[in-house]
Amino acid sequence: MFILINLKAYPADPVAIANAAKEVADASGARIAVAPQAADLAAVAETGVETWAQHIDPNDPGSHTGSTLAEAAKRAGATGTLINHSEQRLRLATIDTTVQAAERVELETCVCANNPAQIGAVTAFGPDAVAVEPPALIGGDVSVATADPDIISNAVTAAAEVNAETAVYCGAGISSGDDLETASELGATGVLLASGVAKADDPRATLNSLVEPVS
Amino acid sequence: MFILINLKAYPADPVAIANAAKEVADASGARIAVAPQAADLAAVAETGVETWAQHIDPNDPGSHTGSTLAEAAKRAGATGTLINHSEQRLRLATIDTTVQAAERVELETCVCANNPAQIGAVTAFGPDAVAVEPPALIGGDVSVATADPDIISNAVTAAAEVNAETAVYCGAGISSGDDLETASELGATGVLLASGVAKADDPRATLNSLVEPVS
Amino acid sequence: MFILINLKAYPADPVAIANAAKEVADASGARIAVAPQAADLAAVAETGVETWAQHIDPNDPGSHTGSTLAEAAKRAGATGTLINHSEQRLRLATIDTTVQAAERVELETCVCANNPAQIGAVTAFGPDAVAVEPPALIGGDVSVATADPDIISNAVTAAAEVNAETAVYCGAGISSGDDLETASELGATGVLLASGVAKADDPRATLNSLVEPVS
Amino acid sequence: MFILINLKAYPADPVAIANAAKEVADASGARIAVAPQAADLAAVAETGVETWAQHIDPNDPGSHTGSTLAEAAKRAGATGTLINHSEQRLRLATIDTTVQAAERVELETCVCANNPAQIGAVTAFGPDAVAVEPPALIGGDVSVATADPDIISNAVTAAAEVNAETAVYCGAGISSGDDLETASELGATGVLLASGVAKADDPRATLNSLVEPVS
Repeated sequence: MFILINLKAYPADPVAIANAAKEVADASGARIAVAPQAADLAAVAETGVETWAQHIDPNDPGSHTGSTLAEAAKRAGATGTLINHSEQRLRLATIDTTVQAAERVELETCVCANNPAQIGAVTAFGPDAVAVEPPALIGGDVSVATADPDIISNAVTAAAEVNAETAVYCGAGISSGDDLETASELGATGVLLASGVAKADDPRATLNSLVEPVS
Repeated sequence: MFILINLKAYPADPVAIANAAKEVADASGARIAVAPQAADLAAVAETGVETWAQHIDPNDPGSHTGSTLAEAAKRAGATGTLINHSEQRLRLATIDTTVQAAERVELETCVCANNPAQIGAVTAFGPDAVAVEPPALIGGDVSVATADPDIISNAVTAAAEVNAETAVYCGAGISSGDDLETASELGATGVLLASGVAKADDPRATLNSLVEPVS
Repeated sequence: MFILINLKAYPADPVAIANAAKEVADASGARIAVAPQAADLAAVAETGVETWAQHIDPNDPGSHTGSTLAEAAKRAGATGTLINHSEQRLRLATIDTTVQAAERVELETCVCANNPAQIGAVTAFGPDAVAVEPPALIGGDVSVATADPDIISNAVTAAAEVNAETAVYCGAGISSGDDLETASELGATGVLLASGVAKADDPRATLNSLVEPVS
Repeated sequence: MFILINLKAYPADPVAIANAAKEVADASGARIAVAPQAADLAAVAETGVETWAQHIDPNDPGSHTGSTLAEAAKRAGATGTLINHSEQRLRLATIDTTVQAAERVELETCVCANNPAQIGAVTAFGPDAVAVEPPALIGGDVSVATADPDIISNAVTAAAEVNAETAVYCGAGISSGDDLETASELGATGVLLASGVAKADDPRATLNSLVEPVS
């Protein structure tokens, strides 16, 4: 089970959370990555934790002011990137070219989408993984297990129909080890977390309780 | 005369150019800053050169995936930021809130705009500086001195009518020391450069020849 | 006092409201205009009421699919257009070119903005009018008179400092004849209304009670 | 073979072209539709020709200034709409909700996309048709038959794998009756035309020569 912690633009210290994630990953053997803002990538990568970008631009190198290129994310230490997160929705054609931009420098890719139909759609672009973010669960306290388990298994089916090798992650509704187990039973092989860790009083303890059932 | 080198998303090594800029600034006494991509801010700042962001998002800390907050740019070592560059045009209301976001963490601000009317408009938001980017000069080889000197002096006038303390920079058409002198004579107190330095075979030599007449 | 009714994308029948507005305008002598969706412009203009577009694109004629050009709005019967409404915020440079596009076919222009600083900014582009839409009042039931009278008079001052001939409208917080009078006393020469009329059980009666104090 | 003439924002008189298209359709028995700007929908529909929107917004009725709702397009006489045209690219999630908005009022839908992978992706949202617009052919004089025939047949295959009932149109590279025949042989059941008709000296003659081989 892959655990990706999206730090968004929360006020939390990204290095402190990265250190906690690194320790829990090392101690438990779980695969845990941290996705900070672009400007924090270098500092997070320096902790040794697996580091992901929250977003990259689709551009090739050139005259693009204010972009984050795949090359720059890689240079700062990222090994993967989210694409089309619900807070950074992209045009269809841009998702296509962004996946290609990531592949250009061998960044691992996870494309987010709202529902099984969209999951099927983005799987066609060949990312390594897709993450389903049911709108009803985004940013809320509702657990995926109680709220809407079908959307996960339907997303798994929708992705498999297009490409059986694409991993499917659960992009919302995860806040406990039980949620992780449920997501796993529904066919997800990874989860995205954000405020549950980034706003926790003790991120290390929260991560430990998350990985316990799956490690 | 302030010289700001916008590295855009060029393939050039940002640290190499930052080192060259630092050396020329130290040797000449000229004020030279480098603006890399967000993911490269930390590495550029580590060279000791004055470091600017190419863009920041207007948001307060919170749930904003894929943003570059003023706080994150500052944390990575930036001391200033471009806003509304011609390759990253913003909504009017967003320029307003982005200037405020930069002020929140005391980043110096330079808002770009196309023409004297727009320069007057953005000066109303209280940035430290404005930069006029005549569309006819952007990305070209035409020098501001020969092409369109009035647009610079008109921008200086337009800004002064709104706020006499706002610095006015020349945002395009600069590729030589002569251009710098001309911009200075027209009332600009800074210039933005990009490909002229970032694509130069020898960025240090190029910077030296630029600062010679004004240092 | 100019009264502009923005029908937004409300389910109300645009022709029924246009007919009511035409009757009240004719009976009272008040200047009342109706701004429907682009696809409804022709049907609204056919009622004889003064007709405005809610938005036009900045483009010149050419290869722009899905745009509403100034020429097309004019052809359908519009004589004016809103620009940069709070639900259709534009980039700074686009506001500039959209005002020019409207002038190309002699559409009257009213540029909306959030606060006095932005009002000063957009007045620099030379529109016929500007409308201040205090965010706290948008879409709410709060009256401009009770909530935030200073923002109107400050907007009037900000516009006058840039161009004394630009009309200033009150873009939010108007739901009664009293509000109209207050806006007028604060220096506004027009008001924008939306749901107050478009969602009224009897739009004609609502308009009559609005114009009574000022006609 | 369905022929859809996209008038874009060309200076041509939309009613004159609509009348020509109506006559040629009636005389030849070919299915020909005209897609004008939103503000021109009513005037075009009044000619009796099949009328399409170039774009609709994804919104439900409500507070959306400057939108073109499915309901408004329908009310003005449209019976179909393009979605995600190359000059009006949409976010993935917006394509999904726009198809649903069109279905809400029974507008026929044709979603455009760049390449076979994207065609497969958008077919997942259940539109009536998809149109492939190879970037190399957009706006050029190159014929689809000579330039890139495989992209059409690959798009037909990609759509069929997702939904065998989705029609596939050729969205670029059509300027003659021969091109229409080629598109048909490659599996397309419709074509999109723009400047070839909208900028023709004699649109009626151009349409007649187009439909001759297929009628």
